Amino acid sequence: MDVISENRAFGGVQGVYRHSSHSCGCEMTFGLFLPEEARDGPVPVLWYLSGLTCTHENAMVKAGAQGWAAEQGIALVFPDTSPRGDAVADDDAFDLGQGAGFYVNATQKPWAPHYRMWDYVAEDLPSMLQEEFPLDMARQAITGHSMGGHGALTLAMSLPGRFRSVSAFAPICNPMASDWGAKQFAAYLGGDEAQWAAHDASHLMRERGFDGPVLVDTGTDDQFYDFLRPAALADAVVERRQVASLRLQKGYDHSYFFVSSFMEDHVAFHAEALYAG
Amino acid sequence: MDVISENRAFGGVQGVYRHSSHSCGCEMTFGLFLPEEARDGPVPVLWYLSGLTCTHENAMVKAGAQGWAAEQGIALVFPDTSPRGDAVADDDAFDLGQGAGFYVNATQKPWAPHYRMWDYVAEDLPSMLQEEFPLDMARQAITGHSMGGHGALTLAMSLPGRFRSVSAFAPICNPMASDWGAKQFAAYLGGDEAQWAAHDASHLMRERGFDGPVLVDTGTDDQFYDFLRPAALADAVVERRQVASLRLQKGYDHSYFFVSSFMEDHVAFHAEALYAG
Repeated sequence: MDVISENRAFGGVQGVYRHSSHSCGCEMTFGLFLPEEARDGPVPVLWYLSGLTCTHENAMVKAGAQGWAAEQGIALVFPDTSPRGDAVADDDAFDLGQGAGFYVNATQKPWAPHYRMWDYVAEDLPSMLQEEFPLDMARQAITGHSMGGHGALTLAMSLPGRFRSVSAFAPICNPMASDWGAKQFAAYLGGDEAQWAAHDASHLMRERGFDGPVLVDTGTDDQFYDFLRPAALADAVVERRQVASLRLQKGYDHSYFFVSSFMEDHVAFHAEALYAG
Repeated sequence: MDVISENRAFGGVQGVYRHSSHSCGCEMTFGLFLPEEARDGPVPVLWYLSGLTCTHENAMVKAGAQGWAAEQGIALVFPDTSPRGDAVADDDAFDLGQGAGFYVNATQKPWAPHYRMWDYVAEDLPSMLQEEFPLDMARQAITGHSMGGHGALTLAMSLPGRFRSVSAFAPICNPMASDWGAKQFAAYLGGDEAQWAAHDASHLMRERGFDGPVLVDTGTDDQFYDFLRPAALADAVVERRQVASLRLQKGYDHSYFFVSSFMEDHVAFHAEALYAG
């Protein structure tokens, strides 16, 4: 593991590190914020999965999460959104290929060799983090924005017991039925829609739900509202009687200004779950 | 004035606007955060002047100031750091020309026609803001980072009565005696060092001081510590018996992680002055 940078922030350290990912078959870069408390022993972990076009860096510099995490003594992990590099397949569209991994394991050409973001976030990166940093992996929570909100919700519901709480900012709720989802699932997973369902938060909510609290914020002026399909998730939550807060926030759009505006709430929500019991 | 963007943020609006600047002789872009309270009437204003290489955007997305400003009901202005455009002189160095206006009025070729950032920040932009937005220009305060900290301190001391409080993050304290300053002053203002002194915070502190509170934070691990010359300002503050807090923050560097870590303190410091009396 290489240290790319370490900056003191809010009494802790915001680091950027590079490591070799077995799943993705390439070097991967991630951000990790460790609060001051990590000097004395393992701290709880909040994952933040980012959206289309983002690297590890966007949320790290724009979401304003570190101050709240420092206050709660929680670490933050900022993974990249896809494999990277000249040897990694890509596409000219912003919503396919590098920067758009969609948190799935691709089975189709040309994506299959490197696009294994599910395994990367569910296995590779947690193993490495546990070895290298003072993190209490028995206390994890997960959040994300847009495509990352999709990732957070699907990982949380598919890995029962892993995360104590899940939240999302403007998540893609029903990718099977959206232009943000169907296109990418067809490319990465092929034409069999049964494979897609395992990566659709609304489908998973109907089938499995989540054993813990759920918080989702979406702006009423989100310019991608129709792509996100929040109604599909709301219907599934209601049908399942899932313990959840689904909030529509007046006038907010899809930007990091929206994310940062509600970050305090989300970190406090996760802290309550992470420090319970 | 053109609206470039308006995003809802922390109950208010983070806008980006473009206008024609008489002083700079070009189009200028700035950011303005208006808190929710601005709907009901004029609100106090905190200026944030940015450092080398920055546009209006860097602090707006990375300094984490809006949340604290919203809490205090204060507007934030984020000016650009220089004139811009193909017709505007530039230099290959990152610390001269576009992105490096140093908040002076250039008198020398090729800079004189457009590089009038002092007048832009002291006159042009305030006039326009007062006309177009619900801002209480009787209640202004100013801060900045690095080159912008230099700008904040020199403007505050040179325009008595304009700002109620001044603060800075890792300011260039003594540019006349620094490679961040002497080079640019020679280029913009010519060889007469008497002209430079009017733009040196440590000199102004000795000669004039500031009629209000001063707060300055600098990181002990700032990678540009020797360029900033904090001792020169500290000496002047002590000699003058200026009411001031000069703080060295352990382990922090020159980045926005440092700025955002102490933004809460700075906004609270200014709010106290802005709402006094």
